[in-house]
Amino acid sequence: MIDFPYIGDICQSTPSKVLMLVADGLGGAPHPETGKSELEVARTPNLDRLASRSACGLTTPVMPGITPGSGPGHLSLFGYDPVKYLIGRGVLEALGIDVDMQYGDVAARGNFCTVDDQGRLVDRRAGRISSSESIPLCELLDQIEVPGLDVRVFPVKDYRFVALFRGQGLGENVTETDPQVLEAPPRRVEALDSQGEKTAAAANALIEGVKEVLGDRDRANMVLLRGFSQLPQLPDFGQTYRLNPAAIAAYPMYRGLAKVAGMTVIPAGATFQEEVETLGRHYQEHDFFYLHYKPADAAGEDGDFDAKVEALEELDGFIPGLLDLEPDALIIAGDHATPSILAGHGWQPVPLLIHSKLTLGEGVEAFHERACANGSLGRIQATEVMFLALAHAGKLLKFGP
Amino acid sequence: MIDFPYIGDICQSTPSKVLMLVADGLGGAPHPETGKSELEVARTPNLDRLASRSACGLTTPVMPGITPGSGPGHLSLFGYDPVKYLIGRGVLEALGIDVDMQYGDVAARGNFCTVDDQGRLVDRRAGRISSSESIPLCELLDQIEVPGLDVRVFPVKDYRFVALFRGQGLGENVTETDPQVLEAPPRRVEALDSQGEKTAAAANALIEGVKEVLGDRDRANMVLLRGFSQLPQLPDFGQTYRLNPAAIAAYPMYRGLAKVAGMTVIPAGATFQEEVETLGRHYQEHDFFYLHYKPADAAGEDGDFDAKVEALEELDGFIPGLLDLEPDALIIAGDHATPSILAGHGWQPVPLLIHSKLTLGEGVEAFHERACANGSLGRIQATEVMFLALAHAGKLLKFGP
Repeated sequence: MIDFPYIGDICQSTPSKVLMLVADGLGGAPHPETGKSELEVARTPNLDRLASRSACGLTTPVMPGITPGSGPGHLSLFGYDPVKYLIGRGVLEALGIDVDMQYGDVAARGNFCTVDDQGRLVDRRAGRISSSESIPLCELLDQIEVPGLDVRVFPVKDYRFVALFRGQGLGENVTETDPQVLEAPPRRVEALDSQGEKTAAAANALIEGVKEVLGDRDRANMVLLRGFSQLPQLPDFGQTYRLNPAAIAAYPMYRGLAKVAGMTVIPAGATFQEEVETLGRHYQEHDFFYLHYKPADAAGEDGDFDAKVEALEELDGFIPGLLDLEPDALIIAGDHATPSILAGHGWQPVPLLIHSKLTLGEGVEAFHERACANGSLGRIQATEVMFLALAHAGKLLKFGP
Repeated sequence: MIDFPYIGDICQSTPSKVLMLVADGLGGAPHPETGKSELEVARTPNLDRLASRSACGLTTPVMPGITPGSGPGHLSLFGYDPVKYLIGRGVLEALGIDVDMQYGDVAARGNFCTVDDQGRLVDRRAGRISSSESIPLCELLDQIEVPGLDVRVFPVKDYRFVALFRGQGLGENVTETDPQVLEAPPRRVEALDSQGEKTAAAANALIEGVKEVLGDRDRANMVLLRGFSQLPQLPDFGQTYRLNPAAIAAYPMYRGLAKVAGMTVIPAGATFQEEVETLGRHYQEHDFFYLHYKPADAAGEDGDFDAKVEALEELDGFIPGLLDLEPDALIIAGDHATPSILAGHGWQPVPLLIHSKLTLGEGVEAFHERACANGSLGRIQATEVMFLALAHAGKLLKFGP
């Protein structure tokens, strides 16, 4: 958790409820032609009205100039130092397809590739084969036996899959097999410390099995394995803040991140509408809810300014329903910016809104980057948001006599 | 470097170019009569137009209230924690006269003083003798032999000089000889740790030699030595950020600071005009340029508000030429404020401008302290500028998956 050693002394359990809506990729950047950001262009009357009665500001997810992935972006908002607690690439890929990872498991990102009869790479992505071709191949690989371990292979999408290694004494510090260039053979997995030896042996055994199973094929006859990683040991979110927290997210990766933090994941449908309905049904069962909204990020990643505007306007329509639940503290935050002009995640600070009965006299004229820069919260680290949320919900005691 | 342990994982070398113009003493403070700062009074149409299409903000060089010297001010902008990496007084004095310091050398600031026939101080600055008197004295001192070491004495200005000790096993932790009061004899140099013993012995041997060489004189017949220090071991700037960096600075101290960071120093003439011409000639050879502009600081140090305004207006005239080079990221920053009302360095935050193709929709109405305070960058630590510069030039990968 954020470096405040007395957190255990000041958090108190109360019946009050905190609702943290994380709008993925919420922040944007001004369009070079209009000088207005996606949030400035979007018609968001509900968010704007709410911002006029809320404490507003901007969050820095990691530090200026640093563009966070979804892992660090979310961990920061949950209060975890994103530089201290790392989510590996294999883990995130596994979480993203709802693999039930356990502590000690090692996950790797895999992809099919094509090698020639000398075993040298000729296509690092096997012609980007589609899921219809790769799913049966993953089923074959999933049956490869590695003595003493449970090794599983799960399809992700197209040529990508996850390899999961489960057993005693596995470590994550091993090398990757992708040589990054063509005409070289895939590398063997090498241990980088003694803990990694068993993982390296298992990964190499899997690769030997792949040769036997796929070796006769013309393409997608080999695999590359990268991003070997284990679940980090995070302080438990609920225990730390004395909360009974729940996560509602349509996308598996975000459910996975919440699970890593120790939140209860409530199953929901595939749309935000279904997420909100799920929230309503389970509202009495928890005192903290993390609710994830994906579409703004997806549009920003596509570099589609107008689609991002539309996604933000769509989100705006859900605000009255969330307010009807009367959460004691409503947080609207983003894990990072996804400016359409970058067509990807960005380093820009992200709008933040905290609404409680204590903020009714505060506010800014609208909910966007420029207005929030002048809000009463100023610019804060994303890791500090949880303290503000708890404070506004009356869950934090005075620090010191 | 700034405390971000994954910097090696996210920096990537690209052909894009970063130009960091450090306008020394850029920031100022409002004049008590007009309420306007030097930058607000100065007619700077080019900077203002640029600011309207740039990400602007204010930098804190060290922390609020702390006035940095040129060493910490520059190291911060280069991304080094100025509290962790210290440049000693002797080192800075040596760099300021272009002494070619090597790692392990110890430099001390020296000045001539006058002692009576009992060896007691009667004038700590020897009547502030001029360079014409001190230069021949330095030449005499430079010939003093200290067994086992190479000891050099270089004139600085008037009564000041640099003593340089080169040899194996020297340390910097030794006491100074200035008793700070008159009628006391200069102190002997004492080692503060075992590494300092050889330095102390050498410094005392030099002082014995000075007695022999200058003892018959009426004034300037002794020396005081202070600020013993060695080059700090800084992480290499180019290796850290994966850059091929170059420094262009008319004043030796700034070339020295760049050299300490591991930048290639490109020789230039004595004026900013010549610096800019040098930049143009060498623009294809590097992907990062540190360009130093001195006159604004010098005027501020003199407490000459109008001269500082003029120096800023002069700088403004160079902006179109710099833009013609089309750097992918242009940074205009200051190492510290030099408010004319202080007639010295100040602790005030310093205007910052970052211009890239991503900032065309951003901006403030003018380039001065008040406008930059409302800029999209907000107020950041100077140590964070490099990350933003690299991000805007597309040289930073995402942190975490």
